[in-house]
Amino acid sequence: MNDAEPTDSLAEWLAGRPTAAGQTLGARLAQGLREAVLQGVVAPGQRLPATRALAERLGVARNTLVAVYAQLAAEGFVVAGQGSGTYACRVTPEQVSARPASKAAPAPGRLTAPALSARGRRYQGHPLHRFWARQPFCPGGFDAELFPHALWNRLLAQPLRQADAALLAAGEPGGAPALREAIAQHVRTTRGVRCESRQVIVTDSTAQSLDLIARLLCDPGDAVWIENPCYWGASQALADLGLSLQAMDVDDDGMPVPPAPARGAPRPRLAYLTPSHQFPTGAVMPLARRLDWLAHAREHGTLLVEDDYDSEYRYTGMPFPSLQGLDSDTAGGQRVLYLGSFSKTMYPGIRVGFLVVPAGLASVFGDASADFYRDGDQLVQQALARFIAEGHYGSHVRALRREYGARREALVQALWRAVPELMADPSRLRLLGGARGVHLALALPARVDDQMLATRCAALGVSVIPLSAYCVGRSHRGLVLSYAGCAPERIAPLVGRLAPALRATLG
Amino acid sequence: MNDAEPTDSLAEWLAGRPTAAGQTLGARLAQGLREAVLQGVVAPGQRLPATRALAERLGVARNTLVAVYAQLAAEGFVVAGQGSGTYACRVTPEQVSARPASKAAPAPGRLTAPALSARGRRYQGHPLHRFWARQPFCPGGFDAELFPHALWNRLLAQPLRQADAALLAAGEPGGAPALREAIAQHVRTTRGVRCESRQVIVTDSTAQSLDLIARLLCDPGDAVWIENPCYWGASQALADLGLSLQAMDVDDDGMPVPPAPARGAPRPRLAYLTPSHQFPTGAVMPLARRLDWLAHAREHGTLLVEDDYDSEYRYTGMPFPSLQGLDSDTAGGQRVLYLGSFSKTMYPGIRVGFLVVPAGLASVFGDASADFYRDGDQLVQQALARFIAEGHYGSHVRALRREYGARREALVQALWRAVPELMADPSRLRLLGGARGVHLALALPARVDDQMLATRCAALGVSVIPLSAYCVGRSHRGLVLSYAGCAPERIAPLVGRLAPALRATLG
Repeated sequence: MNDAEPTDSLAEWLAGRPTAAGQTLGARLAQGLREAVLQGVVAPGQRLPATRALAERLGVARNTLVAVYAQLAAEGFVVAGQGSGTYACRVTPEQVSARPASKAAPAPGRLTAPALSARGRRYQGHPLHRFWARQPFCPGGFDAELFPHALWNRLLAQPLRQADAALLAAGEPGGAPALREAIAQHVRTTRGVRCESRQVIVTDSTAQSLDLIARLLCDPGDAVWIENPCYWGASQALADLGLSLQAMDVDDDGMPVPPAPARGAPRPRLAYLTPSHQFPTGAVMPLARRLDWLAHAREHGTLLVEDDYDSEYRYTGMPFPSLQGLDSDTAGGQRVLYLGSFSKTMYPGIRVGFLVVPAGLASVFGDASADFYRDGDQLVQQALARFIAEGHYGSHVRALRREYGARREALVQALWRAVPELMADPSRLRLLGGARGVHLALALPARVDDQMLATRCAALGVSVIPLSAYCVGRSHRGLVLSYAGCAPERIAPLVGRLAPALRATLG
Repeated sequence: MNDAEPTDSLAEWLAGRPTAAGQTLGARLAQGLREAVLQGVVAPGQRLPATRALAERLGVARNTLVAVYAQLAAEGFVVAGQGSGTYACRVTPEQVSARPASKAAPAPGRLTAPALSARGRRYQGHPLHRFWARQPFCPGGFDAELFPHALWNRLLAQPLRQADAALLAAGEPGGAPALREAIAQHVRTTRGVRCESRQVIVTDSTAQSLDLIARLLCDPGDAVWIENPCYWGASQALADLGLSLQAMDVDDDGMPVPPAPARGAPRPRLAYLTPSHQFPTGAVMPLARRLDWLAHAREHGTLLVEDDYDSEYRYTGMPFPSLQGLDSDTAGGQRVLYLGSFSKTMYPGIRVGFLVVPAGLASVFGDASADFYRDGDQLVQQALARFIAEGHYGSHVRALRREYGARREALVQALWRAVPELMADPSRLRLLGGARGVHLALALPARVDDQMLATRCAALGVSVIPLSAYCVGRSHRGLVLSYAGCAPERIAPLVGRLAPALRATLG
């Protein structure tokens, strides 16, 4: 054993260590001694001063130092020697950092920040990141002026008047029963969805609903059909879960039914569809194609995922019935998983989505949702259940529908006023899709670089999303303008600012 | 074109349709006509009665029926013929269901409920499902008696007194800044974690933190080291993201450092570690092995994921410093991602976890977390930030530590009283790990079927988890008893009920 570390020099070194806020004397001394060992102030294997001597030098109670030595021994920074004596451990960072790097050593760059994986780089490099901003015409917009704050806050605050352990517990698998019942009732009457409340699984979001579907019903490498262009959150979730995405160009009727797979060829496990209002082109799928999809699903074993993300917003006539309801109308068992969300009807931060699964899958989906993600916020789930069941939700959605319909109309009129010559020429600027939802898609000629146009728009202070950013292979060119978060009086001035960029590109 | 459907019979059929609650007349008629088309009441291609005649028969305003026909035409259920006249669409479910099934048609079973994938079946078949129950000795237990309800409810309710759009918006990427700052301050002083607040990424849970790591830093097929036995949520999340799990048997010092990979062999991308208190064996990793792991990580490019899930609970001495802090102490850049959670210190339903990432990854992790999962509940994040920053969290954890320490002691004493002859013989029953955390692991001889023993215990009314349920290949046998949710006076009676099962198996 080496000689003991001179008591004076170690005491001096320890006294010079900074004290963190709220740190006890013992914790400070322990941390100081750890650093003394790690930094070689006490050499590997060297004997530490006796507690009595060091305590005296430091002016602390000996018992404090005895406890600190015991702590460091338990941690392995020091070891008790035979008989008396405490020694610095023999493994030190000097040994560690002096260990020769192998021939296949990592490049120096790896030592600073770990590199993203290919999957991480694909996320980071997605073109949507370049265009999305918290601005009026970007998706996810929200107008707090339209929200019934007082009513909602009252529903949230009411259970907080007393201690309620149920609000703190992990919830029931599948979501709060009252919320599942309220959602089931709502989608049955407004969307023609055929379900009991136990088939409703409450999730955080549509992305989480898809994550759950992919984890329970798909294996890595399984082929899935997705729309092209496609909602980013859907394609990202499905790709990250290892599925092999087959993007199908949508037309004015939504995603076409693919030809029957060749004999022996792998059959896609899922098709992800937005039949009510294709995102982002706005196409509405007619009945004939819906029935073709259902027939294809039955014949080839494909499951249809119907994302009904903004079906509440239809500005002429009644909403179309859901594909899920159509599936149940016909023979053959349910092959449609229906997805919904409250972020576009309540508020972006609500984090309540849901899926409706075939009855035979209800139990495993509920359990898995609880196991994978924990259950949602009980306070919010209870408040939302009351908000729906007491009829507030229906009234709120009707009010939003009127308001968003007016905004859409204002947006179309503003475009006609700002660039009438372009709007009158569908070969240059063409309004896509039905009068629905909270965004409007404009098709541009295939020769136009819509990402460059969106960059020009952003330079004029207005962020819009290029349609090709949602595409595989830039199959579609255009602009997507979301208006949910844009007060009506702001619409015309913002569109006016876009006019020079539109003219310069298309003129 | 066929003749028109006789007006009388269609009117009679429509009048016989049920009315859903709250359904308007138009919606009811539209739904009735849709079903008439789908069920062949109106044959494919057949002409519908004129709106005037049908309206008269039904005793409804003609305009109502005109709107309904327009709606159905828009949906594709009917088509407008040349000149006047409206015809049922030519695609009908008869055609659909009569379509001959191909030779490779799905088995009849597929028509009822879609089958789970192999991944889904692996989840469903996991042995933990058989043993977990909402019972005192099962993980995730919570004692609402120990929670400061009034204080917490006040913090939650306070912002609800006024309309605050910020509470409804999608939050800042990475979490509420106040919460990130509070967490950074907390882990710096209590765990020796070296970080700024921007390195703290708020998530829902440890599983979500791992999901984020796997999606950004790993690719499908990448090898990761996991502990054996291992926290289920970690192995499930990493496997579902396509990683290739390499389970390493833990010993009394936690997970051993693997030998250097052979030249050219793939290097594991991650190692998932619980060094403070291995889950579930309770092993505490000594300094020497921690330094070896750090050296291995630096040399081979492996990232270390340190799950510090219950480090707040240590019943003797001070908590060990984190591996992350040790990494920063030494040269070479950060290779540790540090994970924490509030579900064991606040309440199970809080859904707030976090990870601390190397500074160079802070921005992409924050953005991706917002994009993949939406941001957490703003009300809860703000309340938790205040709860920590105002010192309530520190006091609450200290109170819990005292209480849980007493419960652990009561559990150990109850075991000594109930089965002294087994406790005195480590070859039959051996207490594993350090005096920490909120669960106690007991090792059993390798010959014992711990899952059968747990089944016996459940039959006696007490659910415990067999250690092998956390293992790959049943490498470890034992029982895991969580005591966080078990009031002290219930401990001895519950353990007393286990005694016959323990004696019958080990006696």
